[in-house]
Amino acid sequence: MTAADAGTGLLAPGWTGSPAAAEAGDGAVLRALLDAEAALTRAQAAAGSAPAGAAAAVTAAAADPGRFDLASLAERARDGGNPVIPLVADLTRVVGEPYGPFVHRGATSQDIMDTALMLVAHRALGPLLDDLGRTQRALAGLAAEHRDTVLPGRTLTQHAVPTTFGLKAAGWRSLVLDARDRVTAVRASLPAQLGGAAGTLAAFTAYGAADPTGLPALYARELGLRPPALPWHTLRTPVADLAGALAFTAGALGKLAADVLTYSRTEIAEVSEAGAGGSSAMPHKANPVRSTLIAAAARQAPQLAATLYGSLTAEDERPAGAWHAEWEPLRELLRLAGGAARDAAGLTGGLRVHADVMREHLGLTHGMIVSERLSAELSPLLGRGRAKELLTGLARRADAEDRDPGALLGDMLDELLVREPGLAERPEWRRFDPAAAADPARYTGSAGLLTDRALERP
Amino acid sequence: MTAADAGTGLLAPGWTGSPAAAEAGDGAVLRALLDAEAALTRAQAAAGSAPAGAAAAVTAAAADPGRFDLASLAERARDGGNPVIPLVADLTRVVGEPYGPFVHRGATSQDIMDTALMLVAHRALGPLLDDLGRTQRALAGLAAEHRDTVLPGRTLTQHAVPTTFGLKAAGWRSLVLDARDRVTAVRASLPAQLGGAAGTLAAFTAYGAADPTGLPALYARELGLRPPALPWHTLRTPVADLAGALAFTAGALGKLAADVLTYSRTEIAEVSEAGAGGSSAMPHKANPVRSTLIAAAARQAPQLAATLYGSLTAEDERPAGAWHAEWEPLRELLRLAGGAARDAAGLTGGLRVHADVMREHLGLTHGMIVSERLSAELSPLLGRGRAKELLTGLARRADAEDRDPGALLGDMLDELLVREPGLAERPEWRRFDPAAAADPARYTGSAGLLTDRALERP
Amino acid sequence: MTAADAGTGLLAPGWTGSPAAAEAGDGAVLRALLDAEAALTRAQAAAGSAPAGAAAAVTAAAADPGRFDLASLAERARDGGNPVIPLVADLTRVVGEPYGPFVHRGATSQDIMDTALMLVAHRALGPLLDDLGRTQRALAGLAAEHRDTVLPGRTLTQHAVPTTFGLKAAGWRSLVLDARDRVTAVRASLPAQLGGAAGTLAAFTAYGAADPTGLPALYARELGLRPPALPWHTLRTPVADLAGALAFTAGALGKLAADVLTYSRTEIAEVSEAGAGGSSAMPHKANPVRSTLIAAAARQAPQLAATLYGSLTAEDERPAGAWHAEWEPLRELLRLAGGAARDAAGLTGGLRVHADVMREHLGLTHGMIVSERLSAELSPLLGRGRAKELLTGLARRADAEDRDPGALLGDMLDELLVREPGLAERPEWRRFDPAAAADPARYTGSAGLLTDRALERP
Amino acid sequence: MTAADAGTGLLAPGWTGSPAAAEAGDGAVLRALLDAEAALTRAQAAAGSAPAGAAAAVTAAAADPGRFDLASLAERARDGGNPVIPLVADLTRVVGEPYGPFVHRGATSQDIMDTALMLVAHRALGPLLDDLGRTQRALAGLAAEHRDTVLPGRTLTQHAVPTTFGLKAAGWRSLVLDARDRVTAVRASLPAQLGGAAGTLAAFTAYGAADPTGLPALYARELGLRPPALPWHTLRTPVADLAGALAFTAGALGKLAADVLTYSRTEIAEVSEAGAGGSSAMPHKANPVRSTLIAAAARQAPQLAATLYGSLTAEDERPAGAWHAEWEPLRELLRLAGGAARDAAGLTGGLRVHADVMREHLGLTHGMIVSERLSAELSPLLGRGRAKELLTGLARRADAEDRDPGALLGDMLDELLVREPGLAERPEWRRFDPAAAADPARYTGSAGLLTDRALERP
Repeated sequence: MTAADAGTGLLAPGWTGSPAAAEAGDGAVLRALLDAEAALTRAQAAAGSAPAGAAAAVTAAAADPGRFDLASLAERARDGGNPVIPLVADLTRVVGEPYGPFVHRGATSQDIMDTALMLVAHRALGPLLDDLGRTQRALAGLAAEHRDTVLPGRTLTQHAVPTTFGLKAAGWRSLVLDARDRVTAVRASLPAQLGGAAGTLAAFTAYGAADPTGLPALYARELGLRPPALPWHTLRTPVADLAGALAFTAGALGKLAADVLTYSRTEIAEVSEAGAGGSSAMPHKANPVRSTLIAAAARQAPQLAATLYGSLTAEDERPAGAWHAEWEPLRELLRLAGGAARDAAGLTGGLRVHADVMREHLGLTHGMIVSERLSAELSPLLGRGRAKELLTGLARRADAEDRDPGALLGDMLDELLVREPGLAERPEWRRFDPAAAADPARYTGSAGLLTDRALERP
Repeated sequence: MTAADAGTGLLAPGWTGSPAAAEAGDGAVLRALLDAEAALTRAQAAAGSAPAGAAAAVTAAAADPGRFDLASLAERARDGGNPVIPLVADLTRVVGEPYGPFVHRGATSQDIMDTALMLVAHRALGPLLDDLGRTQRALAGLAAEHRDTVLPGRTLTQHAVPTTFGLKAAGWRSLVLDARDRVTAVRASLPAQLGGAAGTLAAFTAYGAADPTGLPALYARELGLRPPALPWHTLRTPVADLAGALAFTAGALGKLAADVLTYSRTEIAEVSEAGAGGSSAMPHKANPVRSTLIAAAARQAPQLAATLYGSLTAEDERPAGAWHAEWEPLRELLRLAGGAARDAAGLTGGLRVHADVMREHLGLTHGMIVSERLSAELSPLLGRGRAKELLTGLARRADAEDRDPGALLGDMLDELLVREPGLAERPEWRRFDPAAAADPARYTGSAGLLTDRALERP
Repeated sequence: MTAADAGTGLLAPGWTGSPAAAEAGDGAVLRALLDAEAALTRAQAAAGSAPAGAAAAVTAAAADPGRFDLASLAERARDGGNPVIPLVADLTRVVGEPYGPFVHRGATSQDIMDTALMLVAHRALGPLLDDLGRTQRALAGLAAEHRDTVLPGRTLTQHAVPTTFGLKAAGWRSLVLDARDRVTAVRASLPAQLGGAAGTLAAFTAYGAADPTGLPALYARELGLRPPALPWHTLRTPVADLAGALAFTAGALGKLAADVLTYSRTEIAEVSEAGAGGSSAMPHKANPVRSTLIAAAARQAPQLAATLYGSLTAEDERPAGAWHAEWEPLRELLRLAGGAARDAAGLTGGLRVHADVMREHLGLTHGMIVSERLSAELSPLLGRGRAKELLTGLARRADAEDRDPGALLGDMLDELLVREPGLAERPEWRRFDPAAAADPARYTGSAGLLTDRALERP
Repeated sequence: MTAADAGTGLLAPGWTGSPAAAEAGDGAVLRALLDAEAALTRAQAAAGSAPAGAAAAVTAAAADPGRFDLASLAERARDGGNPVIPLVADLTRVVGEPYGPFVHRGATSQDIMDTALMLVAHRALGPLLDDLGRTQRALAGLAAEHRDTVLPGRTLTQHAVPTTFGLKAAGWRSLVLDARDRVTAVRASLPAQLGGAAGTLAAFTAYGAADPTGLPALYARELGLRPPALPWHTLRTPVADLAGALAFTAGALGKLAADVLTYSRTEIAEVSEAGAGGSSAMPHKANPVRSTLIAAAARQAPQLAATLYGSLTAEDERPAGAWHAEWEPLRELLRLAGGAARDAAGLTGGLRVHADVMREHLGLTHGMIVSERLSAELSPLLGRGRAKELLTGLARRADAEDRDPGALLGDMLDELLVREPGLAERPEWRRFDPAAAADPARYTGSAGLLTDRALERP
């Protein structure tokens, strides 16, 4: 197998080439493994249980991942079931005498592997958060700009009542902020792992440490990770928390993508992606590719998260399978969520909003998009039964006569007046303005205020 | 279909009869739906947009779920796709004139449904948290009691180095506390839902409210839920957060169960469940049933959570399917996690720990369970190669001669001395105590300190 | 907990009241458990290892599920972790002396439980297959009727090239037939379970059978199930096969629902569900409720199937959790797929197809829906570059001038002729008919033939 | 991004370097995409709608994947959302004039992508089936060799009744054969994909084919795939069937691994893996690495399959996301199942079975492992109550006195005789042999016959 055979992201246009994916590839994992080994020796030196020279030597040897052969490490990882075992052998050889024996001293493979994956997550979540930041700012701009752009609110695929594009964008943004908050919190909580063979830190004492319980914190500090409360070889809170935050992020962006895909349909065309993907054979096509790739990520992420939640059930001091089953799904989740964030930033940064088309669509139900309002306002005037009858007639006639519902409603009410003379005297009647009541643009409720309020969230 | 056909938990011994399940059954959902409707009218009365009499009348009518026919509601829910539509009809009829028209006024079905499910979650999480509390206290007791009970640490199914049962129990407890913290946070965040047909609150204005943006907070207060920042009909953060916290809880308890199941094996028998399940045909059997049922919950929860994370991708102002796909999985997750918490409280409250069996097992590898320590201590003395050779010999002889490894090691070192006279003069040599080094009970590293520290967490 | 609290399907309008759900409820499970017990005694009588009187007595006692208290069984199931243990106690008591001891003789709980769930599946799949049959017939009718009804083919949400509604319906039908074939095969393969405590049939010998290896086949025959090749307590092929077939069915119907939901959108309106769900507040709404409920099932099924596939990993002769984790997901899958089949039969049986709207939509891209054809036909004539230029101009002008593309294309080609006089002499040129080439209704390729061919599949 | 960053399998020791993985890497996908393009042109030549020179030229250009830049293709795949678009551009350039225009003529990206992934699956399943073959043969050998090797049957972690290792191995084998049958059937059914832009084959007509409905079969024949009944761009039966068969395979092997992991535990040690993975720090460890890696695959596969089942719900003629979400999960499933099959072949080929340890364990319950038999045989003699009392006493005394249960049982029965003199006269009494009844090795029921029968399956 050549490296090329294993993957260049050919089947993953959603994450290929993204900054998050670059931090999660095999090369980046190798770098993180080496960083973890070097930090371990430095931490022991800081604790006085290894010579300073060892710290320097291991750090120097670990500084250049290029010295290590990824394909060989991958192959030899099969013997013991993880890549740390062969890496320790190679790193020890590179360090040479006299400091080789200080490589990995007192640690277990899982200490290094878990720490490295936390480092990988920490690094991959940086650009992901940047892209969420870009996305939320773009959405804030869209929400402000389109605070009063009216379009049909749709429920179960049908026009319901009007809403605003500002409220839509503010809603998407609130999900992006929720994702940002969850990812930020998880990122800040990612711990280093250090426990030794069974999580008791015993080997560090055997190698001479008086009290090794301070070592994990020194180690974590070297890496910019949080000190662990306990060794967490089989207490997988950090992995589960990552799973939840990343599945959330993919889903939050998936909502945005689902709406953009709907709005992009040829028949709807209320928004379009900038630089939509073309088709050589069909020159008229402009595919919403960014949304498509986000949607694809959102379809995959929950199940990968399920695998990681399932690995909480990890028997013993190191499980035979549950731990190994985490690595690829965790990495793939980082890639998918990171790639989706990149595409969301691109998508929202260039989204074209066709306010005129939105407005036009308000008329598709021949005014019945405000039927809820008419029902609410006419029922107290006419009684529920009468009001319903009138509205049913209105719906039928507006559809058949293709007339403006405001004018039509005025006519119908006039007819009604003839039959019920007392009606005209009532003050509510005089206040009632058929044209206003039938105008979708004046039935957006508190959409503007809700948008304003949502935009106050920093 | 009779009610009995739909489910009594016959296939779910894990949650049947649990307090959490009682709060999540169809009867409890109906009660929550009615509570939500009554709160809505009261909130409108509080806001001055409905008469106080309406609030009283709707509250009174909604107070007794027994007036409503669950089976009929379920059947009629098929017409519109949710049970709120027929419930509103029935409730309006029960309220009668003049206040019937105030039932559900301005709301959409999803406002009531979402709010009711948040109420159900809030109520079901109460007993779940109680049971997690019981569990963590029992585990704290076990950890303290067995702070220094030594047993084999196991990795990839094999004895690795010793650990303590105190550290095990402290680790289980830390997961339970992590679950408690996550569930507590989510529970406190559960919002009421109020937005009207498309989330703009427009109908409330149509029915006369000057500014309905304050209404959701009044409504939430009536129900003890959090006011929503925005209507969240398709911003499903609350549901996703519940999914994560519940999958976490099931998995955290699943780790405990996995270990108890291993420790309960006939060959291991280091712990046993109090009141383990018997078998009529095989009188000797004592099945770890509580652990089994927890394990079953832990296997189901991640995939149910995946469905809920998948529903984040909810198009439009109300999706055609993603919303409907949440109801049963959310309810089942509440049941499974709640049932698992009940069983965990029972399991940990009565767990029998066989410290003597644990100690005995330390000898199963003929002392090689401390090979890591011997390797660490002898390498500086003898050089790595020599030390390894000696240990390999020790392993072979201990196994073959079935002798105490400490004594055997002393003999082997004596033989070595004969060949290398200078060795005896070295101070490290004189400090080295073969019997101590070969004693598994003295190779538990920082297990005690780590346990103490973990137990400080409140 | 009352029975009502446990579930009436209030949260599952997709399956509540369906024939498949009736066969999968707790009452039906109880009936199947009793059927399995009775069949076991009859099989032993047939084999000569139990008296005929025992067979008659157990069969009689098991005939009326009403004698057994579901709620009590559910509660007592907690002791041993499954409902068979208390049921055997109750059934033995009902049978009384002298035949009580023949109840369940030689069997293990899992023999009865697995067999009962296979019976439940067999019974629930009957109506499911009926509904798939109704669905495929309705779709065959639609495909034949609309063999030549042209509508836009859509890819990545955009109009691509024309297709026919006949081909769409034929495609939906082919998925339904695939589901039918998979379900039919699995249904025919469902085995009875009989192995005794550890799958060796040993207890039957202890109770006097000379060679009990024939017993499973006798038992299976009593129940209309397949004889098992081996006891399959932890060889879960039948459950995994059910999972696959049911997830397939839900997904196959989900494709149909996804398309109907798209076609039902207010802006598209190419089909509508008969008896679409209304809204009291918004009288104009006609929600595609049947499709919505199918879509909800399709979102849940894959993850339930994942849990069942995960239970293949079942340790020992009976696993502590993996088996217990199957029951609810399997039953829920039966309900969801069965309910979706019912809704699909209703949906397709009453689907209204708006061929005029479909035709109208072919013009939405101003004729560019045939750009692929124009490109293919003009390139050989004009060269690729020239052809592309012409088509780009056509797209722009058709959009701007809102003219019929066929006529416009004719004009453009005339202009071209003026500049390139030789062109007119070429035979391909004379054969090229701009009006025909630009007519979407004449660019449906082999849609008709493919439809015909697909409809030949029985 | 360098190729190394994207993946060498560093985190996937389960599949890295396996033959199946080699057929599923990006290099192999590129080769399959090129094979599909070449076959398309050849098929058109065979149909008379392209010159033979074009077929030769495209085939020649596509023969060497090394001419194409994977990283560049991956990057450019982002524009249109799939790698076929840039590949067609590159391949057209390599073919050059005059045949470049025949590259991809009439096809859509999905035709090539789907076909290529079916080819990849076909190729990866070859070695997978070989490894399943090796595995089943090894298991057949173990089953025959250990037909009568007795060991404890375990249920819910507890010794239940004896079984044989032969029956265990035969059971594992039956699952492997089930997997083989499912994979073989799916592999034989994998279709080529050909439909053009919207599945109507229209472009082929536009390019001159009289009737293109025969083209898909010609195309499929070129590739050794099955001709499609219909274009299946959004009729995803082939992908769902692959998902099911691969999840089944991973789970079937996961059962084997779960048992081997249990049997490998230090306390149980009934089997050991040949070449078990060592630990440098703990020389005594022999980790069951092959089983561990299989177990890790079995934990991931069901959720990946769920994503693929979820993609059945694919809207329109090409979905915006559901299709794209298939690629990585399908490939990863092929790798995981293929890698697990490789490890299963290695595991079973070298498994060491410790029959003496198994036999020894039969005594761990002090003989009560045959309590079921004793209960069955003594109840008719003594009555149920008396028998139960006797057995309870036996269990207690055998445990306390650490005596052979057969002898002990004889003593107890002798005591009984004294009190009940008539008993000795009964013929059943005289036939009853306490030593035989208490011998676990004589209570294996039909295990041998069942093993023989299972081994007849070819």
